[in-house]
Amino acid sequence: MSEFPSSVEFHEEGPREGFQMEKTHYPLEQRKVLIELLAESGLKQIQVGSFVSTKAVPTMADTAELFAAIDKKPGTRYTSLWLNEAGFRRAVATPGITLDGKILVYTTDEFCLKNNNCTVLELREKQKRWLELYDNAGVPFEQAYIITAFGCNYEGEVAVSKVVDAVRFLEELCSSSKRPLPHIYLADTVGWANPESIKRRISAVRNAVPAVRIGTHLHDTRGLGAANVYAALQMGVDLFDSSVAGLGGCPFAKHANSHGAGNICTEDMVFMCHELGIKTGINLEILVEAALFAERMIGRPLAGKLMHAGIPRKK
Amino acid sequence: MSEFPSSVEFHEEGPREGFQMEKTHYPLEQRKVLIELLAESGLKQIQVGSFVSTKAVPTMADTAELFAAIDKKPGTRYTSLWLNEAGFRRAVATPGITLDGKILVYTTDEFCLKNNNCTVLELREKQKRWLELYDNAGVPFEQAYIITAFGCNYEGEVAVSKVVDAVRFLEELCSSSKRPLPHIYLADTVGWANPESIKRRISAVRNAVPAVRIGTHLHDTRGLGAANVYAALQMGVDLFDSSVAGLGGCPFAKHANSHGAGNICTEDMVFMCHELGIKTGINLEILVEAALFAERMIGRPLAGKLMHAGIPRKK
Repeated sequence: MSEFPSSVEFHEEGPREGFQMEKTHYPLEQRKVLIELLAESGLKQIQVGSFVSTKAVPTMADTAELFAAIDKKPGTRYTSLWLNEAGFRRAVATPGITLDGKILVYTTDEFCLKNNNCTVLELREKQKRWLELYDNAGVPFEQAYIITAFGCNYEGEVAVSKVVDAVRFLEELCSSSKRPLPHIYLADTVGWANPESIKRRISAVRNAVPAVRIGTHLHDTRGLGAANVYAALQMGVDLFDSSVAGLGGCPFAKHANSHGAGNICTEDMVFMCHELGIKTGINLEILVEAALFAERMIGRPLAGKLMHAGIPRKK
Repeated sequence: MSEFPSSVEFHEEGPREGFQMEKTHYPLEQRKVLIELLAESGLKQIQVGSFVSTKAVPTMADTAELFAAIDKKPGTRYTSLWLNEAGFRRAVATPGITLDGKILVYTTDEFCLKNNNCTVLELREKQKRWLELYDNAGVPFEQAYIITAFGCNYEGEVAVSKVVDAVRFLEELCSSSKRPLPHIYLADTVGWANPESIKRRISAVRNAVPAVRIGTHLHDTRGLGAANVYAALQMGVDLFDSSVAGLGGCPFAKHANSHGAGNICTEDMVFMCHELGIKTGINLEILVEAALFAERMIGRPLAGKLMHAGIPRKK
């Protein structure tokens, strides 16, 4: 039955997810405080921001300055997002950053064409270039994200076989360049996952590559986030991307696009792990403090629940 | 492993949960439209309002008028809440109402004293009076709620043995008066349940009284609502109280009291059931329409997620 992991790692994405979409530019000083609180809570990996077009995403234009400003906690990994070579080079040039080499593998052509102007197979070919870049910069290739591993707003439900096909591609890519497989993340940015579809895909990936560590990148798009995390925990998954306070959501918005709904909420999911007896290494009181700080920054109610209800006092 | 029920019944509590706590009095005409939409969606039981002190809860003062105004759909049960004999008599006098006889069984003295000014055992004695009242009015005794079946803000986690003790009381109560056991609801209005504590308590109740139908009354107080429902579904539970749009929540509020956080959200949980292949008899499009109507009435973003993201279009 349930095979919970003994401990779970949360990778915090709130500081990027939460602010990249906002119209307001939140002061660097506030984002610094938030990130320092998150590190203090015990989170070991925090995505600070992104090195993307400063025209397209002006709220992320000061990411390098933010990295410089953070009072860094030893042992914590401060990471970032990049989407092209120019962005990667800016990241490489940033002191204090942890560069976690990653690639994205798509499953459906229509979604891939809309996002990358090329087919799934064409994009896979291009990933080889990333491995070269990472090798040249001495950056470890750590993570592969299988994008739309559950469903796609254009093509509907994504078959398990397409997820396995993406895994097979990763296997070939790594074996041909004699490197170990990275962690494989099943991503559901558009909110198609349900607890059973999570279990089916995790089983299939584990059957295909038993030694690989599997992670999930889930959004609480349609209210199944907690159930999906619980299902992943039941399958022994011990690696989750998440956002403090559920940052990234957008009230009253019809989010037909892929970024409208927030990530699963870090502190609510940490709370669930603790209730289930699973270790996280996180101090929930400090994490809730960070969530409330994030909510005050944003200035509207955020999706997180625990921060509003309070941590139950055990006797 | 998972033993999902083939179909699930949702009892809608939004029209009462959502409006009883509000400072604004929402017009009867709007609540009528909401209730009619809910019935049209296929929900078979809808709690219209409550017969409680009109001084303490002025927003529920027109419950009888609301019952009279609703254009009732044949086969739908329109129910209400009462807390004392006077309220019950008002309910009995209301045409078109379905009277579902229920009793409440507490598990912890401190919570019981705060709510009822008597101990758990004293309150259990008083429940016999309800059975007399129901018998005299020809009302079937259908439901028993085990209040704080998971935890209590005063006494901490509630032991499984206390839940079983409450079930034993119900067994004696029914056998001594030669009536069948009612449906037994495990209630978590204060948000202490987690998926594993749900499973433990459902197992224990089922072991004690195998033939009884078990329901849950869960609030999404700390973000585990969907995971808790999924856990209950895994245990074969087929009866859930819920609120459209997650009505009943309160943004930005620190809800130390027992009613601050909304019920689990009906349409999100119906969506989950459908995704898991479990029948509900509900038309999700109409239910989402009802949720959006409720949100417009309340005038602030409500907790429901599916209504904001939209139902995914399957190919």
